[in-house]
Amino acid sequence: MTTLVFGHKSPDTDSTGSPIVWAWYLNNIKGIDAKPVLLGEPNTEALFVLDHWNLDKPEIITDLPADTDVVIVDTNNPAELPAGINDANITGIIDHHRLVAGLETRGPIEIDIQPLACTATIMWKKIGKDWAQTPREIKGAALSCILSDTLEFRSPTTTQEDRAIAHSIAEELGVNITEYAEKMFAAKSDVSAFSEEELLRMDSKEFDLEGTGLRVSVLETTSPAPLLERKDALMAAMPGVAKADGAAEVLLFIVDILKEEATLLVPNDTVKTIAEKSFGAAVTGDTVVLPGIMSRKKQIIPSLTM
Amino acid sequence: MTTLVFGHKSPDTDSTGSPIVWAWYLNNIKGIDAKPVLLGEPNTEALFVLDHWNLDKPEIITDLPADTDVVIVDTNNPAELPAGINDANITGIIDHHRLVAGLETRGPIEIDIQPLACTATIMWKKIGKDWAQTPREIKGAALSCILSDTLEFRSPTTTQEDRAIAHSIAEELGVNITEYAEKMFAAKSDVSAFSEEELLRMDSKEFDLEGTGLRVSVLETTSPAPLLERKDALMAAMPGVAKADGAAEVLLFIVDILKEEATLLVPNDTVKTIAEKSFGAAVTGDTVVLPGIMSRKKQIIPSLTM
Repeated sequence: MTTLVFGHKSPDTDSTGSPIVWAWYLNNIKGIDAKPVLLGEPNTEALFVLDHWNLDKPEIITDLPADTDVVIVDTNNPAELPAGINDANITGIIDHHRLVAGLETRGPIEIDIQPLACTATIMWKKIGKDWAQTPREIKGAALSCILSDTLEFRSPTTTQEDRAIAHSIAEELGVNITEYAEKMFAAKSDVSAFSEEELLRMDSKEFDLEGTGLRVSVLETTSPAPLLERKDALMAAMPGVAKADGAAEVLLFIVDILKEEATLLVPNDTVKTIAEKSFGAAVTGDTVVLPGIMSRKKQIIPSLTM
Repeated sequence: MTTLVFGHKSPDTDSTGSPIVWAWYLNNIKGIDAKPVLLGEPNTEALFVLDHWNLDKPEIITDLPADTDVVIVDTNNPAELPAGINDANITGIIDHHRLVAGLETRGPIEIDIQPLACTATIMWKKIGKDWAQTPREIKGAALSCILSDTLEFRSPTTTQEDRAIAHSIAEELGVNITEYAEKMFAAKSDVSAFSEEELLRMDSKEFDLEGTGLRVSVLETTSPAPLLERKDALMAAMPGVAKADGAAEVLLFIVDILKEEATLLVPNDTVKTIAEKSFGAAVTGDTVVLPGIMSRKKQIIPSLTM
């Protein structure tokens, strides 16, 4: 049986590229028949990465038959995985997020969660000396994942290992990191084709704040202006998205990768209170700039209070 | 703040020795103030190991204050941990059991679960080149954990890694594995001081079989006779233990380490049906011998049906 390797339902570069890296490793080094798949349409940055490295876009699956062998990467949260995930035969988990209660395995399996910025960094370490055998496009996928998740080392999630490994891979490939990351971020910033609803759900995690369900959405961009021009439409779409997804509020953080700051949209007094109490921000209008805020995992979620 | 390192509530040799190994590593190699503790009284084999290697018996804690830094080893099951475990600050998990839903961490932490027979085997791999610095008594604790969990390599959970690492440590220490394991198993087999209730709970895991709560208990011994002489008293104690622990039935497997077989006590028709359907056994009296059955994790639990 083919082992399916996948990340979460909103495939960014790490959730698109890491399954490709790991499926290559399983197939070519471990002798395990494996296939990378996606649980949704990849974002524009991930599509750029696939195209740049001449990688096939993995099949998008919508159904996961019971007993399928699967390796889960870049998440351990059932809410971000197919409904039947615990009926599958989970054979491995590689992740860099906090453990949440939910997944169950049938027997003891290899689970490797490390507090690094990127799943691909963990994979590089696990692949070890066999890395020498990885082809150019797999190396390119791994490098792209690290640059994406670390925002070219600007994110406070970045560790020395992420940085050192990315530099090592870039050198092998002869890639200029700054020039390449600029192209990746330009692709990620081109969100003109997406509806407001799609933007609010593009890179979003559910979070329970003292009983209030929040959808905490982040849009990382090098050109925030076109997004901010759509702020009224984005705020108008929030109640509908919140209701459809069973949340009370949508928090949208537009992260300016180059200026290293986030702009939070403030559609109502609840979000205003959250912004003031969580970030000590003085909110006067319907947006507030939060200097230095770049990481949902490391900065936004741990700060949230109301 | 001191990091507490502990295993599960019924400390066998692995859940007693592995916290000692890992706390030594954290203190002496990682520079993290750490202390091994126990969540209950160690079994007779674990007490022998502590005495043999001149190790202090770790403090038994009954209360876990919120926000305590903890590393959990040899389990990831909240049912086997203090009630407030998710209010503690879990900073690491090292285990070799299946993942069960329950634990939550505050942020991304290092979680290393591997399908090996013993926690100490995983630790040996994680310690890597720093193993050269471990003192004799720490090496002895690790060796004891592996010999205990593998039943001196007889258990089907044993992997090549467990075996190779145990042999390597034994050679460093100049320990004759057969002679030493014999002493360990003799200590484990000396259960004359325990009540029937204590024996039924000594090495026991809760398991839900199609809605029926089972307490699946195992007693590993080199001398089953004294236990089998107490079978009437053990069966008489089962309904009380089951009721107190919220289970429907207690399954007690007396594992003969040397003959490599288990004897299951059969107190009633429900257990008789489970024995017949799970193991294809022909049950005529109130016990049934199951040849080759030694591992709850690898053989008993996966076979259970009713």
